[in-house]
Amino acid sequence: MDGVGAVRLAGMCGDVRAGRGPAYRVLADTIRVLVGDGRLASGTRLPAERALAGQLRVSRVTVTHAYRELRDAGWAQARQGAGTWVRLPDGELRVDGVWAPGPVRGGAIDLSHAAPAAPSVLPALVRRAADRLDDELGRHGYGPDGLAALRERIAARFTGRGVPTGPDQIVVTGGALHALHLAVAELTGPGDRVLVEHPTYPAALDLLADAGVRPVPVAVGDDPAEFALPRAARQTAARAAFLMADFQNPTGRLLDDEARSRLLHRLARHGTVAIVDETFVELDLREPGAPVPLPCAAHAPRPDDVVTVGSASKIAWGGLRIGWIRAGRGPAARMRRRLARTQIAPPVLEQLVAVEVHDALGTIREERIGQLRTRRDRLVSELAAALPHWRYDVPDGGLALWCDLGTPCSTALTAVAPRHGLVLAPGPRFGAGSVFADRLRLPFTHPGPVLADAVRRLRRAADDVAGRASGLDTWAGERAGIVV
Amino acid sequence: MDGVGAVRLAGMCGDVRAGRGPAYRVLADTIRVLVGDGRLASGTRLPAERALAGQLRVSRVTVTHAYRELRDAGWAQARQGAGTWVRLPDGELRVDGVWAPGPVRGGAIDLSHAAPAAPSVLPALVRRAADRLDDELGRHGYGPDGLAALRERIAARFTGRGVPTGPDQIVVTGGALHALHLAVAELTGPGDRVLVEHPTYPAALDLLADAGVRPVPVAVGDDPAEFALPRAARQTAARAAFLMADFQNPTGRLLDDEARSRLLHRLARHGTVAIVDETFVELDLREPGAPVPLPCAAHAPRPDDVVTVGSASKIAWGGLRIGWIRAGRGPAARMRRRLARTQIAPPVLEQLVAVEVHDALGTIREERIGQLRTRRDRLVSELAAALPHWRYDVPDGGLALWCDLGTPCSTALTAVAPRHGLVLAPGPRFGAGSVFADRLRLPFTHPGPVLADAVRRLRRAADDVAGRASGLDTWAGERAGIVV
Repeated sequence: MDGVGAVRLAGMCGDVRAGRGPAYRVLADTIRVLVGDGRLASGTRLPAERALAGQLRVSRVTVTHAYRELRDAGWAQARQGAGTWVRLPDGELRVDGVWAPGPVRGGAIDLSHAAPAAPSVLPALVRRAADRLDDELGRHGYGPDGLAALRERIAARFTGRGVPTGPDQIVVTGGALHALHLAVAELTGPGDRVLVEHPTYPAALDLLADAGVRPVPVAVGDDPAEFALPRAARQTAARAAFLMADFQNPTGRLLDDEARSRLLHRLARHGTVAIVDETFVELDLREPGAPVPLPCAAHAPRPDDVVTVGSASKIAWGGLRIGWIRAGRGPAARMRRRLARTQIAPPVLEQLVAVEVHDALGTIREERIGQLRTRRDRLVSELAAALPHWRYDVPDGGLALWCDLGTPCSTALTAVAPRHGLVLAPGPRFGAGSVFADRLRLPFTHPGPVLADAVRRLRRAADDVAGRASGLDTWAGERAGIVV
Repeated sequence: MDGVGAVRLAGMCGDVRAGRGPAYRVLADTIRVLVGDGRLASGTRLPAERALAGQLRVSRVTVTHAYRELRDAGWAQARQGAGTWVRLPDGELRVDGVWAPGPVRGGAIDLSHAAPAAPSVLPALVRRAADRLDDELGRHGYGPDGLAALRERIAARFTGRGVPTGPDQIVVTGGALHALHLAVAELTGPGDRVLVEHPTYPAALDLLADAGVRPVPVAVGDDPAEFALPRAARQTAARAAFLMADFQNPTGRLLDDEARSRLLHRLARHGTVAIVDETFVELDLREPGAPVPLPCAAHAPRPDDVVTVGSASKIAWGGLRIGWIRAGRGPAARMRRRLARTQIAPPVLEQLVAVEVHDALGTIREERIGQLRTRRDRLVSELAAALPHWRYDVPDGGLALWCDLGTPCSTALTAVAPRHGLVLAPGPRFGAGSVFADRLRLPFTHPGPVLADAVRRLRRAADDVAGRASGLDTWAGERAGIVV
């Protein structure tokens, strides 16, 4: 594994002398964040102490102490005379390489996950599913295609939303990320280009990197998606585009029907398949009666121009690992077979719970949406009072605010946050390359009082980093793609 | 996709004029089996009718009728003037590309799966798991590393069997096949050679093919595994070897401690990592007091010489999709992260059921083993009466007999079986290349009366194919590897 140079690491760390606390600890905390969120790959060799000290303008003993602290905590290891390598501590039972920079310790508030607790009806649904399971236990339990009852309900929900769908167009998966994994494997090969909105869902970026495809980040902030994505499709001959039209993660943006139609037709013209992630589609926080756009699949010129992925995780519960794909009949059958060839079949009980979730969707949505509206508004009012210079659009749906912090202090905030009992996911995790250093996704999935407490801690963390923000997030990203 | 030549297909089909029923139907049934079990890949072009008719020595109209029957049933499609292509019918809701040649229709007895119904205690365990789930629902539910309670129990079971194991050495997966998938991804790259016992678990062969590795089948029938596998390891520099030491699927063979020790030490000497599938380890049907060998992991010279995979599917229930990997701490942490990057986390409820299964292991095993002993003995006595010329060793454990039919009629039997209300998995599915045409795996997982009925049907199917057996299974396999 390669090393990271002193100049580059110093650039990623910024000024470790500013802020509160000893510089060695700030340095160790920052390196831990960089390793935790993947900007420094596990196995990367750290620069020689003297060289890094020179670049950071600190004493060599500061770097020595920082490296020792990392080693003692399991985040680095040394080989005598050969140097120090960073690593994800594998002794940790809860290392989370997906979003969070590290384990959430007792009492800390986790703002790195945008995932609410289960709705109150879930225990009853689980028990009903357990009753239904009794009818299945006399058989061998292997159903590679997923339970017919679940596929019928998923198909019916699509049909009800305006895009006629049969159960043979549905693939049952272990969540939306697994669905995306299967879709990427079906549609792309190594070296293919795949457009991603920028910012986007961090785990999608990791997944594309693992698949060997080349993500092409497309900024959709200023330029609307229906222009920016097709232009990039034309320029790059991208095989596919990963996008969220419903309360995009993390921005919360909702595309209307006109934008969807333009977007899907233009992508199709360039031969780019749209992989549309509908994970947040049921989390519409607007007033009743607001116009609900048709699913992207309804706007596609041809059935195979769009592959839709969805999940029960956000409307119901993250611990329920059931997602799905809607696609043309042929691709759906191939993806079911692909899943069968690595996992045989989805779990039966889990699918039965998902059946119950579908049957109780109205009840669950009502509770969920009422709760999320209240929590969103609470987070907004707490932020307005405590951190009035942070900017964001109040989203029409989804689970989080996407905040503009004004200065590139997102990684620094994430590094000091644990000292204040807070776990954050830094802005750069939501992008590829040296961007979003001044952004932070703040989920409003916790109850109001917890959010109020979280904002107090956030304010203290922000005070802590004040004065050493500049430079901290200016880095050339590990996962950099072609920024269009 | 390539076509299959008339000579080759005719060789795979054998004499379609012999046996009962019209020749066109025998031909259509046989092609359906070849497509269903993967010997003819979906998308393969069939030979021109006239050419195939010539090779089969039937009239052209026989081939025309057979092709039409395949098209009508969704197993083929034609393009005007261009030919006929076989396909797996994607309209079918229950196409099963993993083992079975096709969907199991009402009233048919399924002998293609070796998987018993759930034990009687499972409903109670599921309800206890549902109660425990209530404590988890207040959190977001994402635990990429799997539930600590489950990993502790899996580790404790290994420790109890004689190989000290910590929870940080355990990866929780979606079943044994998923565990194998992660292990192969961790240990190998495309083009690497992986030894497989021959015969072996069919889904493992498919998985290795999908991973782009080169399976090296090693016959372990005459030559003991502890000699044959290391010899192949030396000759091929194989990266890994996939093997079952406990009641191997399909042969039922059990390796004793001496053989394990020799095998593991010799493989280690050649740098070949043993991937040991323990799916059947709890299915020991010998008398109490028979010497129980230590797990292979206990015999490995170094911790990273062996990766063990296991599953709750066979002792508990196939619809419960929980398996595991035991490995060194470093590889285990990497495989947990690999799983997280495609699926985020294993499902919580499913894991809680697996916790209960571990806590009730003694009870479950007692019921399971008593039942399987009775069923095995019933199958043996029914076969002795109905098909006395079939040969097999009565296995000490596992779920099936591996029968030598005396003639290469396994594919023909599988083709006619549905007419007699029976679903079979043909012998060649358990191997790579042109072998096991005279073998059939017969699971004893059904209740005694069902097994008796199944053997009656099997006898009728065998009578049906009598006279057209020769040549039917002599084919050059699609998935052929290097036969050592």
